[in-house]
Amino acid sequence: MKIRIYYEDTDAGGIVYHTNYIKYCERARSETFFEKGIKPSHSDTSGFIVKDIKASFLATAKLGDLVEVKGKVLKLKNSSLILLQEIYNNEVKLFSMEVVLVYVSEGKPVRILPQHRELFEGYF
Amino acid sequence: MKIRIYYEDTDAGGIVYHTNYIKYCERARSETFFEKGIKPSHSDTSGFIVKDIKASFLATAKLGDLVEVKGKVLKLKNSSLILLQEIYNNEVKLFSMEVVLVYVSEGKPVRILPQHRELFEGYF
Amino acid sequence: MKIRIYYEDTDAGGIVYHTNYIKYCERARSETFFEKGIKPSHSDTSGFIVKDIKASFLATAKLGDLVEVKGKVLKLKNSSLILLQEIYNNEVKLFSMEVVLVYVSEGKPVRILPQHRELFEGYF
Amino acid sequence: MKIRIYYEDTDAGGIVYHTNYIKYCERARSETFFEKGIKPSHSDTSGFIVKDIKASFLATAKLGDLVEVKGKVLKLKNSSLILLQEIYNNEVKLFSMEVVLVYVSEGKPVRILPQHRELFEGYF
Repeated sequence: MKIRIYYEDTDAGGIVYHTNYIKYCERARSETFFEKGIKPSHSDTSGFIVKDIKASFLATAKLGDLVEVKGKVLKLKNSSLILLQEIYNNEVKLFSMEVVLVYVSEGKPVRILPQHRELFEGYF
Repeated sequence: MKIRIYYEDTDAGGIVYHTNYIKYCERARSETFFEKGIKPSHSDTSGFIVKDIKASFLATAKLGDLVEVKGKVLKLKNSSLILLQEIYNNEVKLFSMEVVLVYVSEGKPVRILPQHRELFEGYF
Repeated sequence: MKIRIYYEDTDAGGIVYHTNYIKYCERARSETFFEKGIKPSHSDTSGFIVKDIKASFLATAKLGDLVEVKGKVLKLKNSSLILLQEIYNNEVKLFSMEVVLVYVSEGKPVRILPQHRELFEGYF
Repeated sequence: MKIRIYYEDTDAGGIVYHTNYIKYCERARSETFFEKGIKPSHSDTSGFIVKDIKASFLATAKLGDLVEVKGKVLKLKNSSLILLQEIYNNEVKLFSMEVVLVYVSEGKPVRILPQHRELFEGYF
């Protein structure tokens, strides 16, 4: 997934504001669902939540850059998964994150739906 | 209401990203409710929505500045109001906006609640 | 220009946070430059600034929607222009804005560059 | 440092958008400098950058909540430090993060300034 860096993404340091890389990773996760027309949850009170993040900021992007978010499932369990997401500016790796996602319904972890499981297995 | 300018508020131009002034005005409107402990709506499907905005960007703030949002009701009608909101950096006016707010319930304009009406009359 | 609505774009009302429509318009303006490989300014201290906005919020978008920003130059002067920008969700107009942009250098209005002028004349 | 949750902070899930907790931590770090009137860097090309983050999302805040960011220096080295930052909603811990900050000048790690070192030693 390609993401353009706009003014809103940058800060007074002239580069992308650090937490935005984490937002881009969420955009990429959501886009996986949206582009297939699959709802990211089966009800208003269910969905994937971010439980843990381990992130490294390696280099920076600037206004007008077109960066790319790449992803790979590291582990797929009953109600959770670990995802590796990396952001590149051409060949240069800017950002790397391991994120633990849990599928919850009414606040409790529940089994990941078959259509979501398939998506994770196929896409990454 | 005082608002500090953080990195997240600035852009690569070194100053506050323009739409953020409009966000600060919304913060100030919400804070009026929150600080009095008054809910900004009487149900999940009701609330004030922004219908029209007329805004002028006069000067800019930068990282670390402490700006102030001031407000004044220009017109208070049955189900809507016009608010003048201005943002200052000390004596310097940075931003001025007239905003038309409508109180809606399930998508339709309804009469503004007495407690909200009182707030608008008293506060501004 | 198509823009997908992600979680970051929505608020607790379940719809797009109002100022984000104004951000999308800025994205569309910047994209016009970036996709042609034209720099939006001729130096670090020059660029287009937003001077005035007149906006109407007509309908709302929600998570997963793919909205489109359309634009049209209403007036092109020596150092400024008036742009009409509208956002659609399929056939439904969500947002309409007239924005006055001024090209400034070191804080003063200056003549719009030929390559920018050409872009505005051709694109819209 | 107290932070109010506004509409802009929430998402369609009705709660605070996850990356915003990381933004609040940055606000708290910056505020430490601003409230003492100390510049967060000694030149335009220097400053603290976020190198690594390890974060856990434990509970959620919602519109109108007033959360608090607390901080503690875990390790203070020549040109970097490890900070523990936690966000509470009254007694409930919402978020916990270990962040590695590096002081850089023109892209290279340099010795943390005495006034910054003092701030970190005193404040936390």
